[in-house]
Amino acid sequence: MSTQTIELKSYIRDIPDFPKKGIIFKDITPLLADKDAFSRTIKQIAEVGEKYSITKIMAIESRGFIFGSAVAHAMNVGVIPVRKKGKLPHKTFSETYQLEYGQDSLEMHIDALTPGEKVLIVDDVLATGGTAQAVAQLVKKAGGEPMAMAFVIELNFLNGRDKIKECPVVSLIHY
Amino acid sequence: MSTQTIELKSYIRDIPDFPKKGIIFKDITPLLADKDAFSRTIKQIAEVGEKYSITKIMAIESRGFIFGSAVAHAMNVGVIPVRKKGKLPHKTFSETYQLEYGQDSLEMHIDALTPGEKVLIVDDVLATGGTAQAVAQLVKKAGGEPMAMAFVIELNFLNGRDKIKECPVVSLIHY
Repeated sequence: MSTQTIELKSYIRDIPDFPKKGIIFKDITPLLADKDAFSRTIKQIAEVGEKYSITKIMAIESRGFIFGSAVAHAMNVGVIPVRKKGKLPHKTFSETYQLEYGQDSLEMHIDALTPGEKVLIVDDVLATGGTAQAVAQLVKKAGGEPMAMAFVIELNFLNGRDKIKECPVVSLIHY
Repeated sequence: MSTQTIELKSYIRDIPDFPKKGIIFKDITPLLADKDAFSRTIKQIAEVGEKYSITKIMAIESRGFIFGSAVAHAMNVGVIPVRKKGKLPHKTFSETYQLEYGQDSLEMHIDALTPGEKVLIVDDVLATGGTAQAVAQLVKKAGGEPMAMAFVIELNFLNGRDKIKECPVVSLIHY
């Protein structure tokens, strides 16, 4: 593990019993509040984007917005919001994914990508991989190419990475 | 009106009858997708932050996350998420504000700001001003100083600006 990874991890705070009893929530807000930690995080994700010559960032609602848009700006590319059902105003592609109980949907605008665009998918946490997998499908429906996914945190014990066959997965912090 | 303002406006798309019949929704996603329009938007908001020597950005869930975090990164300052009730994991300050029907609450972490910090509040749209006003109160509860508010779009006919007594208000696009 690199020194940089260890440093970023020190800005993640454990919150026991959130959102429910028995879960230890990884709180990223101390990392966001620290200008150097935030800047280093964005730089490291942007390096992933540069490696794959991406032309658009897909940012997943809502903590993914925080990282994805800053990376897009740092790389001088556009950012496409992926939102929960019913939030985007124009016509959308939709993908349904499984939750622990029941299911949920994610949407993107049908005209958000130009066919052939190389896309980096950005979110705060890779957990079971259901969300990330759904977004990769959305990118393909819209004619884009999912080149890579980048996460600030990966919860290794949930094996989300195994679900993602479309592209490489890069996470900055592992638990 | 400056040439720059007119140019940004051309990236905002009208969506009739969203989220409900009779409303014309101002869709910012074409602006986000265009790297030059997005970059110019972030630069103009960052200039507001520089003018007031701010040290933290408050970004309002969830479209405000998209602009606020990119501005924070561009200015090399930290970003504090302001979220809907129950979304933030640590202890929070809360402010209730009026909606057309009923009310809603916004929260920030109690330890998000160091007392005396100079804050720029960022959101996508200034409408009635209820949200913005609530966030200004949150900043003061947390010991910070609301120095300015910046919006991509201001709906002038809703007079939201009149509600905000705490600090100057800057909007890039007006309707």
